[in-house]
Amino acid sequence: MDKIRRMDRLVILAKYLTNKPSHLYSLGEFADVFGCAKSTLSEDISLIRTALESSGAGTLETIAGAAGGVRYLPCRPDSAMHEILVKLAAVFSSPDRIIPGGFLYMSDVLFSPEQMVEAGEIFFQRFAPLAPDYILTVETKGIPLALMTARAFNIPLVMARQGNKVTEGSTVSINYLTGSAKRIQTMSVSRRALPAGAKVLVIDDFMKAGGTARGLIDLASEVGANVVGTGVLIATDQPEKKLVDDFTALLMLYKIDEVSKQIDIRPAI
Amino acid sequence: MDKIRRMDRLVILAKYLTNKPSHLYSLGEFADVFGCAKSTLSEDISLIRTALESSGAGTLETIAGAAGGVRYLPCRPDSAMHEILVKLAAVFSSPDRIIPGGFLYMSDVLFSPEQMVEAGEIFFQRFAPLAPDYILTVETKGIPLALMTARAFNIPLVMARQGNKVTEGSTVSINYLTGSAKRIQTMSVSRRALPAGAKVLVIDDFMKAGGTARGLIDLASEVGANVVGTGVLIATDQPEKKLVDDFTALLMLYKIDEVSKQIDIRPAI
Repeated sequence: MDKIRRMDRLVILAKYLTNKPSHLYSLGEFADVFGCAKSTLSEDISLIRTALESSGAGTLETIAGAAGGVRYLPCRPDSAMHEILVKLAAVFSSPDRIIPGGFLYMSDVLFSPEQMVEAGEIFFQRFAPLAPDYILTVETKGIPLALMTARAFNIPLVMARQGNKVTEGSTVSINYLTGSAKRIQTMSVSRRALPAGAKVLVIDDFMKAGGTARGLIDLASEVGANVVGTGVLIATDQPEKKLVDDFTALLMLYKIDEVSKQIDIRPAI
Repeated sequence: MDKIRRMDRLVILAKYLTNKPSHLYSLGEFADVFGCAKSTLSEDISLIRTALESSGAGTLETIAGAAGGVRYLPCRPDSAMHEILVKLAAVFSSPDRIIPGGFLYMSDVLFSPEQMVEAGEIFFQRFAPLAPDYILTVETKGIPLALMTARAFNIPLVMARQGNKVTEGSTVSINYLTGSAKRIQTMSVSRRALPAGAKVLVIDDFMKAGGTARGLIDLASEVGANVVGTGVLIATDQPEKKLVDDFTALLMLYKIDEVSKQIDIRPAI
């Protein structure tokens, strides 16, 4: 009977923990749900940690003390991370993705929940040591990536808007120069969404000259928040000098050739 | 030894299955990963199903045949679904959410991964019998909700854009009348994103007169796709007559009073 109970608990615990990455559950919560002792749960958690780690599916972190508990951290071996990026690069390399004007059609991937979950977890793994409090992005196409990154960290996503929106209440806005098209645009963020002093991780789908990322960094500093890192799914190789000094791209785009129908895109980490 | 192996398998299987709702895994895939017989895996799956169902955390569906396999379906008992909506309504009822002009500040909730996962799973549970092929939404604020709904269904999310975007390739666009503000706007969708004949579920964050949802339905029919259902997180009680006949709202907003600082919002299902 106890064996069956343990198996049920392992399944439910594995589900709860891995479905909410970085979410801290107290052992007391689980003890109430399962009607068992915390010492029994500690054994369960140790079994789950071993199973996850041995299959490269992440790990559990236990935090001692009254405010402590256990949480799932979605970490992969470097080889598994690399494999994901190689596959993603292959998807983006398909010649039928070239759009007149030399653009890359990306929307299907950017709006694929499964692929954005994986990319978000890779950002988590890269940026976890910086311990950000908020993810910041700007509408529109980077939202799913930023949302899944926020999910992996279990922190709020804040979205800057193009222009000013009446439904956001009081906002702070800046003007910024889009790096590639050299146009002046406005972006704004709700005052109540991003407090002064917050540590912010900027996430976006694409970086060419870095104007948008620069704008997000300026916007964050305008509300007194601190950008601790910048992550993009794809950065272009050129221009080499970007408007932000320090960023992590998962993929680097070297070439799109409309005539020869060639796309050269490769993992960048 | 076999006991330990089974526990490891249960944890990993529970993680894989529940982390990708509606994703069909073949038993052969798992047999390769674990190096065990399919009959053993069938026992594991039966144990996992029992554990999930007994705790109201969803179920597993097995599909027989060569193209068959097993997948996780995120279903909750009605009482648990209702509890989630009661809590959500309480969050939205906070008087400090009233923005000058009588708007409701929703962005923090709309961009919360955990809350949108739950709402997306509720839409899955309501609309699963309609078997949609695509989720369709329009930028911006409904994207996380639509993305998490697409995740629960394991189907692609298609996003219509305001106006026309050069990075989407060839598009189809329509003009529509926003129901409340009575302005004419344009929305467009990439031709390659949504094929003719597709069954489409429209998801959006907010419905007042229903102009945006009406626009999405017209846009879908313009590409030859069929809208099989419409789901919104919040609908307003007034106007009673909307521009769409048939929709499911999770919450109904009856009143926002700027003077008395009262918000009346309640679960609608």
